[in-house]
Amino acid sequence: MSCYSDFPFPEDYPNYVPNSLFLEYLKMYAKQFDLLKCIQFKTKVCSVKKCPDFAISGQWEVVTLHEGKQNSTVFDAVMVCIGFLTNPFLPLDSFPGINTFKGQYFHSRQYKHPDIFKDKTVLVVGMGNSGTDIAIEASHVAKKVFLSTTGGAWVISRVNDSGYPWDMVFTTRFQNMVRNFLPTPIVTWLIARKMNSWFNHTNYGLVPEDKTQLREPVLNSELPGYIITGKVLIKPSIKEVKEKSVIFNNTPKEEPIDIIVFATGYTIAFPFLDESVLKVEDEQASLYKYIFPPHLQKPTLAVIGLVKPLGSMIPTGETQARWVVQVLKGVSMLPPPSVMIKDVNEKKENKHSGFGLCYCNALQTDYIKYIDDLLTSINAKPNLFSMLLMDPRLALTLFFGPCSSYQFRLTGTGKWEGARKAIMMQWDRTLNVTKTRIVQESPSPFENLLKLFSCLALLVAVFLIFL
Amino acid sequence: MSCYSDFPFPEDYPNYVPNSLFLEYLKMYAKQFDLLKCIQFKTKVCSVKKCPDFAISGQWEVVTLHEGKQNSTVFDAVMVCIGFLTNPFLPLDSFPGINTFKGQYFHSRQYKHPDIFKDKTVLVVGMGNSGTDIAIEASHVAKKVFLSTTGGAWVISRVNDSGYPWDMVFTTRFQNMVRNFLPTPIVTWLIARKMNSWFNHTNYGLVPEDKTQLREPVLNSELPGYIITGKVLIKPSIKEVKEKSVIFNNTPKEEPIDIIVFATGYTIAFPFLDESVLKVEDEQASLYKYIFPPHLQKPTLAVIGLVKPLGSMIPTGETQARWVVQVLKGVSMLPPPSVMIKDVNEKKENKHSGFGLCYCNALQTDYIKYIDDLLTSINAKPNLFSMLLMDPRLALTLFFGPCSSYQFRLTGTGKWEGARKAIMMQWDRTLNVTKTRIVQESPSPFENLLKLFSCLALLVAVFLIFL
Repeated sequence: MSCYSDFPFPEDYPNYVPNSLFLEYLKMYAKQFDLLKCIQFKTKVCSVKKCPDFAISGQWEVVTLHEGKQNSTVFDAVMVCIGFLTNPFLPLDSFPGINTFKGQYFHSRQYKHPDIFKDKTVLVVGMGNSGTDIAIEASHVAKKVFLSTTGGAWVISRVNDSGYPWDMVFTTRFQNMVRNFLPTPIVTWLIARKMNSWFNHTNYGLVPEDKTQLREPVLNSELPGYIITGKVLIKPSIKEVKEKSVIFNNTPKEEPIDIIVFATGYTIAFPFLDESVLKVEDEQASLYKYIFPPHLQKPTLAVIGLVKPLGSMIPTGETQARWVVQVLKGVSMLPPPSVMIKDVNEKKENKHSGFGLCYCNALQTDYIKYIDDLLTSINAKPNLFSMLLMDPRLALTLFFGPCSSYQFRLTGTGKWEGARKAIMMQWDRTLNVTKTRIVQESPSPFENLLKLFSCLALLVAVFLIFL
Repeated sequence: MSCYSDFPFPEDYPNYVPNSLFLEYLKMYAKQFDLLKCIQFKTKVCSVKKCPDFAISGQWEVVTLHEGKQNSTVFDAVMVCIGFLTNPFLPLDSFPGINTFKGQYFHSRQYKHPDIFKDKTVLVVGMGNSGTDIAIEASHVAKKVFLSTTGGAWVISRVNDSGYPWDMVFTTRFQNMVRNFLPTPIVTWLIARKMNSWFNHTNYGLVPEDKTQLREPVLNSELPGYIITGKVLIKPSIKEVKEKSVIFNNTPKEEPIDIIVFATGYTIAFPFLDESVLKVEDEQASLYKYIFPPHLQKPTLAVIGLVKPLGSMIPTGETQARWVVQVLKGVSMLPPPSVMIKDVNEKKENKHSGFGLCYCNALQTDYIKYIDDLLTSINAKPNLFSMLLMDPRLALTLFFGPCSSYQFRLTGTGKWEGARKAIMMQWDRTLNVTKTRIVQESPSPFENLLKLFSCLALLVAVFLIFL
């Protein structure tokens, strides 16, 4: 689900790709498409400014710093791909007494290796994906690990029902359609039920404060097992930090703490861009389809990856880039600024239709709907109805199967010949990786008996009908 | 579920107690009952022999080694409590080429800390509880971890349905009764269904070769998550060991290996006892109710903990010891040797009734049935029928709730006054430990709607009935 749409992961990659293998994959991708010659590494972008003749040329003057030397270059277009995990958010004011704390503290972005936690009492603040991962890793070597969360979160296991990867089950066009068809309270209720069937989030101290809003879910198979064995202790928000300890809200006991990790997230910022080009307000930038500043005379600046779809980021960013290229080429046209500005303002209001999942903030969006929208712009959206006639097996797989990124390469601009095969083989490839010990299985005697009875019942039924 | 029946774990202990806390608990137990004065530590038992007048006195001559000095002491009775995890079983002959292996290899019993696996490629042979735990721990620091299993196993998550501890749900008198009432093939089929609902054991390469036999299940919440992320790779049995690598059966690729851990289990042996006293054959000793050698003139030697109930070992050993004490005191009498020998031989044949769980080997037994049998001997088995009249709440909790060890202290010899309260509070204590962050929850609007509809439907129904 996380690969580039025309470049599947190697066959021996696990279902969920760890960081080291993902880096290897990116290198393979760069090699396959001969990208390294186009990339200048170790370069800091200091500023991106409109050229004086921007209204006509759409060009940008970019000042960079490379090996201590400042350069100014003119570019025809700029794609800003820094994402939303660049500027650490560390709201120290929210933690009274933090300046008296004698232990070590840092933002999760500075975390590299669990060794620093050896035999220490560790407090991780914030239960996003990073915070939870760090707490788990710390618990392998630390003396004690606390995980403090104000809002709580739904925790999803990578190992979904019957062990299938959760995103391959959750992210299907069929399920998405059903979800978007149901009123939000029912979807919320169904999701809460599903989440609590693995483990009761209330009993584990994790229940989200506001269940009607689908917060960014935490993808972690280990957390409940770590809580139930006491390796990670869940705590509410911090009331006060002391020299060597922390007091939590609604908790009488003061806990001694050696290290605090603030997994408090990130803020969005574009320090190299002038506010007149791109302004960030309330943790969102005014961007048409999360990509284009709507008021520029020329659409030659695009932001990639500043969106939080409930799905994979890699194909999202890739599809955004595919559209941007068509816009820059002049093949795909943007609507007039007034239309774009209206659209952006509507998005900002984040009015909810009352159906489907409820997204907390304006950056969150429906993965399939968003990508389909982009694909439509570049004429690459697969038409399921016509496909049902031409290639019904493929159409049904697209609709009921996982919405893997190969779907975005079946047709139109950027079509990839291998897409159909990749889609039809996706389950085989998923299962083969873990099926590394094969046992010749004979069905249980009871199962045989059940089959026998079913056959007999069927025979009797047929017999009675024809009598 | 694992505590001594009259000494609950401290309130802040997690649901599953890790080794360090368990050691602490044992120390607290010893202190509470002032046991340290009765124990001589660091003493090796060299031999236990009948005294010459054993037929009359029932006494034993025990030779021990303490701080380099040999002692011989006469004891009135001996309880052998070495369990079945003492003598490592390392069948090197079963691994062709192991003597050519240039890497490190050892039995799981010698394993102490994962540091030795740092950046190594590790192969763990055997997928019992130790093997699986070691593979998981190794994967935190190793380069690559393989787990090789011939027979496979069912893996149970500590985090059961809705997150309740699995043993508190599985080990109830009610569920046990239902299981023992159903024909074995149906029980086997139901268990396979249940096990595969968490993750399909076939797809993960773990499916037991012989599903009709309930092998010792592996209790591990992490393994499937580690397989699906590629941290632990499952392999079939070993075909050949080479200098620096291993070839697995039905697997083309040869895998480089640095360290092999043989988690191949243990054998039963009593080197300090003469075969005429206790003989071990086919991995079992001839013991009446897994405790008393049936042919001795005096019942003054007892073996504790040489049984594998599908339940906790601590209360099992404790209840065995309680009965032994009554026998040694002369309060409880053993049947004549002929009866005991007949019973032992019947157990050895391990004939299966065709109902309930199927136990692989003669040492495995039904936890509740076995303990109830021992409790009957010491007149301490709670009578649920009479209790239903006297204390129905307690009776129902005993029947439908977890069969926690406090149940064995409600009545008769060794009655503990705190037992009833401990039983009634068991769920509160279980949940309070993890409920360390409490959120004021308001039911979802949909839930309210559902309730409203139910009430309306009920009103209409009542109205219609009385019309």
